[in-house]
Amino acid sequence: MSTITIPNPHVAKLEVDHYYHIGFNSGMDLAGMFGDVKLVIFGGANDRMKKIAQLFAQAFYPEIDVDSIAPIGETSRFHMFKVGNVITCSHQMGQPSFSILLHEITKMLSVAKAIDPVYIRLGTSGGIDVDAGTVVISNKGFNNLLGTSHQFVAAGKVIERPSEFSAAVYEPLYKCSTELGFKTAIGGTMCCDDFYEGQSRLDGAICEYTEEDKIEFLKRAHDAGVVNIEMESCYFGAFTKYLNIKAATMCVTLVRRLNGDQVVGNTHAWVDRPIAVVLKYAEGLLGLKRHDNFVPEEDHH
Amino acid sequence: MSTITIPNPHVAKLEVDHYYHIGFNSGMDLAGMFGDVKLVIFGGANDRMKKIAQLFAQAFYPEIDVDSIAPIGETSRFHMFKVGNVITCSHQMGQPSFSILLHEITKMLSVAKAIDPVYIRLGTSGGIDVDAGTVVISNKGFNNLLGTSHQFVAAGKVIERPSEFSAAVYEPLYKCSTELGFKTAIGGTMCCDDFYEGQSRLDGAICEYTEEDKIEFLKRAHDAGVVNIEMESCYFGAFTKYLNIKAATMCVTLVRRLNGDQVVGNTHAWVDRPIAVVLKYAEGLLGLKRHDNFVPEEDHH
Repeated sequence: MSTITIPNPHVAKLEVDHYYHIGFNSGMDLAGMFGDVKLVIFGGANDRMKKIAQLFAQAFYPEIDVDSIAPIGETSRFHMFKVGNVITCSHQMGQPSFSILLHEITKMLSVAKAIDPVYIRLGTSGGIDVDAGTVVISNKGFNNLLGTSHQFVAAGKVIERPSEFSAAVYEPLYKCSTELGFKTAIGGTMCCDDFYEGQSRLDGAICEYTEEDKIEFLKRAHDAGVVNIEMESCYFGAFTKYLNIKAATMCVTLVRRLNGDQVVGNTHAWVDRPIAVVLKYAEGLLGLKRHDNFVPEEDHH
Repeated sequence: MSTITIPNPHVAKLEVDHYYHIGFNSGMDLAGMFGDVKLVIFGGANDRMKKIAQLFAQAFYPEIDVDSIAPIGETSRFHMFKVGNVITCSHQMGQPSFSILLHEITKMLSVAKAIDPVYIRLGTSGGIDVDAGTVVISNKGFNNLLGTSHQFVAAGKVIERPSEFSAAVYEPLYKCSTELGFKTAIGGTMCCDDFYEGQSRLDGAICEYTEEDKIEFLKRAHDAGVVNIEMESCYFGAFTKYLNIKAATMCVTLVRRLNGDQVVGNTHAWVDRPIAVVLKYAEGLLGLKRHDNFVPEEDHH
């Protein structure tokens, strides 16, 4: 049982630390607002994070009026919601956007003295060689050169940090997902800085490699242990591991990349699967009774 | 006078090309919807792009009901608006997010046969050694190792593309900005993949370098020709140069980084300056008479 330690001496010297992009600062009553947070759920889109906040309210906090749930703080970049012991917050697309949110929300939860908050990213991804609709739970992040570290540049120097998620989170998520009957895989998630060229798609505005190059690279990634591809998790795994924050990523796959690149058709039925899993997982983490009966749309009978 | 050529033979082979993240596809009447586009304005936030669309309507298209302006296409990621010959569209934060939008909107405008559309990104940035409030117009993009190319990985290989903007755009923008009486600079814009560590700030959740490392790096960047720092333009300059699209970035600075890192206080007055400049520039590009008298808030007397 511990709070998040921020290992940056400069932050302690600030009279007030402004979390500019989320609209809070260390001079506010953060302990009163966020001291009870046990679970932080991240995902790309604003509306989706609102929906997840509403589902958590229905599941665990029936006293909350679902229609009253609105974003808190600054809303021009991210939309953050708080219901009971849970924050849901959009991170938009890509590691740089998510990194801003992670720095600010983590400093905020440290000041708020939240106890052992668990971070989970829910998203969509391209599977390499699994059926579309598979729930993939990441145990580590791969960069786009197939290393299991996040590489970035700070003050002109290249820094490398291992990207690993917490077995204490991904193992129970895996159990919950299989118990719900979803096709589920656990493994590495490769993170790329673009949807088209970065993910070796053939259908971008620019493409300087051949289909053979693409397939060869995807097979090489598969052999290295990569199950799916998205745009956030290598950074996420590196940041949370460095700060000893328990974290995992759980993405549904929308396409099997060895068969094609384009995302088309009715994919919305699958994207609720990670939500069903995280609600089930939260029963144990929050220690609260379920009041709902949420089932992803396509699994209604 | 020419349309955009997409140098990717795979795209031509697709029966229908789905621009997944913006919600259009090549089977639609894109020429009817977008064939008349002459100017595409990009910026981070949804609401800001709506405001700019409204200002363009008031300035050049008085027949458009400003209250009727609403986002078109898919709105869960980006918000795109079309008024007359102008598109405004949010790109959120960071190169990966912007890259998705650039690939899709460019393929779309190519199919629409838009003639010589000019791309301009408006944004905010940190200045290295200019007063906060300065309008900085980029002539080239720098990566965070101070090279003037964008480096990325595709199909497992590192690719490097020079990042340069069009004098045909940045020179008239500079003229318009100085004529409006704004402090204006023209020069290099360094692009980083994070707001905190990536930009050598001292106030992130993690910071492994010293204040001396930071100042030494910022001075080195300054000496190399970097005027300001943001998170999109190195990719933007490389993508548009590769495809022969006339483009520029124009950002106001919110902080002088040699003096500090935190963005605080009333910065909103400055952020309208690039809008005033691009409206003035558009008079010539669109060849239309102005019907408004837009002045940034802080410059009202």
